[in-house]
Amino acid sequence: MNKVYKAHIIYTRQADSFEVLENGYIGVNGKGCVTGVAADLASLGCEDAEVTDLGDCLLIPAMNDLHVHAPQYRNQGLAMDLELLPWLQNYTFPEEMKFANLSYAERMYRRFVHDLWRFGTMRSCVFATVHTESTRLLMDLFRDAGMGALVGKVAMNRNCPAGLQESVEDMVKGYEELLACSQSSRRKVSEADKVRPIITPRFIPSCTPEMLRACGELAGKYGLPVQSHLSENRDEIAWVRELEKESKCYGDAYDRYGLFGQTPTVMAHCVWTAGEELELIKRRDVMVAHCPTSNFNVASGMAPVRQFLDEGIHVGLGSDISGGHCLSIFKVMVYAIQVSKMHYQQNHKRPFLTLSEVFWMATKEAGSFFGRVGSFEPGYEFDALVIDDKDLNHDNYTVLERLERYIYLGDDRQITHRFCGGREITGIGNLGTSTE
Amino acid sequence: MNKVYKAHIIYTRQADSFEVLENGYIGVNGKGCVTGVAADLASLGCEDAEVTDLGDCLLIPAMNDLHVHAPQYRNQGLAMDLELLPWLQNYTFPEEMKFANLSYAERMYRRFVHDLWRFGTMRSCVFATVHTESTRLLMDLFRDAGMGALVGKVAMNRNCPAGLQESVEDMVKGYEELLACSQSSRRKVSEADKVRPIITPRFIPSCTPEMLRACGELAGKYGLPVQSHLSENRDEIAWVRELEKESKCYGDAYDRYGLFGQTPTVMAHCVWTAGEELELIKRRDVMVAHCPTSNFNVASGMAPVRQFLDEGIHVGLGSDISGGHCLSIFKVMVYAIQVSKMHYQQNHKRPFLTLSEVFWMATKEAGSFFGRVGSFEPGYEFDALVIDDKDLNHDNYTVLERLERYIYLGDDRQITHRFCGGREITGIGNLGTSTE
Repeated sequence: MNKVYKAHIIYTRQADSFEVLENGYIGVNGKGCVTGVAADLASLGCEDAEVTDLGDCLLIPAMNDLHVHAPQYRNQGLAMDLELLPWLQNYTFPEEMKFANLSYAERMYRRFVHDLWRFGTMRSCVFATVHTESTRLLMDLFRDAGMGALVGKVAMNRNCPAGLQESVEDMVKGYEELLACSQSSRRKVSEADKVRPIITPRFIPSCTPEMLRACGELAGKYGLPVQSHLSENRDEIAWVRELEKESKCYGDAYDRYGLFGQTPTVMAHCVWTAGEELELIKRRDVMVAHCPTSNFNVASGMAPVRQFLDEGIHVGLGSDISGGHCLSIFKVMVYAIQVSKMHYQQNHKRPFLTLSEVFWMATKEAGSFFGRVGSFEPGYEFDALVIDDKDLNHDNYTVLERLERYIYLGDDRQITHRFCGGREITGIGNLGTSTE
Repeated sequence: MNKVYKAHIIYTRQADSFEVLENGYIGVNGKGCVTGVAADLASLGCEDAEVTDLGDCLLIPAMNDLHVHAPQYRNQGLAMDLELLPWLQNYTFPEEMKFANLSYAERMYRRFVHDLWRFGTMRSCVFATVHTESTRLLMDLFRDAGMGALVGKVAMNRNCPAGLQESVEDMVKGYEELLACSQSSRRKVSEADKVRPIITPRFIPSCTPEMLRACGELAGKYGLPVQSHLSENRDEIAWVRELEKESKCYGDAYDRYGLFGQTPTVMAHCVWTAGEELELIKRRDVMVAHCPTSNFNVASGMAPVRQFLDEGIHVGLGSDISGGHCLSIFKVMVYAIQVSKMHYQQNHKRPFLTLSEVFWMATKEAGSFFGRVGSFEPGYEFDALVIDDKDLNHDNYTVLERLERYIYLGDDRQITHRFCGGREITGIGNLGTSTE
């Protein structure tokens, strides 16, 4: 049975413009997929459907977060006085070690999944920790919520505290356990596999060649996607050059182990990607997760995203908690525009990113990593947010002006409904010690 | 009769560190000024005072906004796709023209003052428009609210729409009317003159030499402070060079007319200030209003604030609505750190700004433009915010970590009480068409 929603519908098909339909109708079929968007029920072919009238609200695709570290959620907005490598040693690794404790993990991960939901992020590419049990717990929380996620048990076996290291064999075994649970859970919830493992070598400095090779083999054997970090910080890049002397560039170090586009791959940051690495990203169709808040906070630099788009590279957005401080992808959009404005200001070679471009990156582009997600074109899964922005509207604004103002000024208070794969997601239940 | 508040007290005396007193007491005398901060009532000399126990909340100085355009409030978060000069022509000037209409002005200004209050900004340096009547109305709204403001009727008589131009004589007459009302209102509310006019030539391109001269004379005659814009954008600077050929720099163009430190002066932006202009700012003790969100949004550039501090220049923060999109000065603090991180990243010459430095800029430094405001040292007016951050506290954090997290993650929801000059400010009443 089809459902139909009526609202001011805004989405993107392509980077350079919004599709806008005021008081439009959108049809959603029994599989949770969009059947069409139209100005009236007849054009939608849904005369008999029950219509949910969302009044004067905006209806937009839900947000997708292409890079976020769930176990760093406690550290969000903390320790913003360090660069990448000391920040990892002093704050991040000690926090991640706590996730050996399942009850600590449950408390933090519940809050994390709840807040993703709160800010309208329905799909995310998540780094967990090295710990298999708490990673499984995180996957279950996403499943219980009905939200989509690719969740990575982080592979690491060098240059980090012993408590975060794991043998290659245990890493492989852990992934195979997660895959087995995924398959059984999938049957249980009888939904598409919205929550799946993703192969996650932390970054080259954390993984020996044996670990990287095993990661690449796992990805190939089970057809699993891959995520990692790439060319974020100059000290990090110099370190990788030392560690992987035979690689032509940082990206090539992943490529040699089957971790660079052999299966769908997303690489976070790419602040300093150029030349050979940029060509390799294009050739391998690796997706970039642009994380502008993090790149500011950890003083990494400003990624050349306009250039990536000009070269046809696919770019989505990531909150990168806790290098980034904003879980809301709307706020990450604002920063993405601002970074590109500073690029523009400093060299005037390329125009800065527009609102439709960053919106497209956060919805349709990033969504493509999860399937047919992120647009309202027919056949896309209905991942959507309803925005009631009346408290931001103290004058007459067009529907697109309202969207721009929501992106710049709004927060979770204006999001009244959230849908993932056609289902309304109403929260993740008890937060334990939470005050909410 | 003294009042005493108990809470976790945090403030700054100097840039490089926070003063922190957990479960401390602060005394406030009958004039609304701080008498002291101490660990117990006896040390405070207030054994008999009634204590307001604020529990586990943080108590910090209120925010001061050194640069904000009240009539651009409707445009907040809009039109973020233009640089300064076309942005003025296409969006800002047309909006400001509407403030000839008093009922429009009242609706917008009420919302503006309410939202300053909401985000914890108790003092601000405000640009109104050229219109005397609506500027007076804005001043009355601040007075009714009990909040502090220096409010500028904007002087402009060239290079803008005719509807925003005024003769030199009308500008002078308008200011004298505002001064007269200020004096009578001041008596009425029997409070210190927390709301006063400030001489406000928009910027050099908007004012003929005659207008600038009259502004300088008015400032001198009545001992009024001065605010304007300085060296924000490279096209603007080139234009000023054309218009004021005899000036050695943009700042010198103000200085020649008595508008650069002859009375207390704050200049917004200073993105491109260097050399002679930097020396002149120091010599004249001109204060800088750093507006990082605006400098990103309007693609102006990144102001060298660390250098200003190293040179002993006084720098506060400004939201610069609607070039800036964040009315919250807390969010402006975050951006100020981020801009300085990009400076650091690009040249590694100077360290980036720390949290205590930006907090000090937003409180004690900016506050100094309004009197003894912005700290909890004895004799300072008690301008304060109470922050109940329990919804951000999902683990154990130190008091300073809680402040950092509030600054990065919090919003108006966590501010439970606001004080200005010792008085609790509970809002500005009816917002007309508002939904609140």
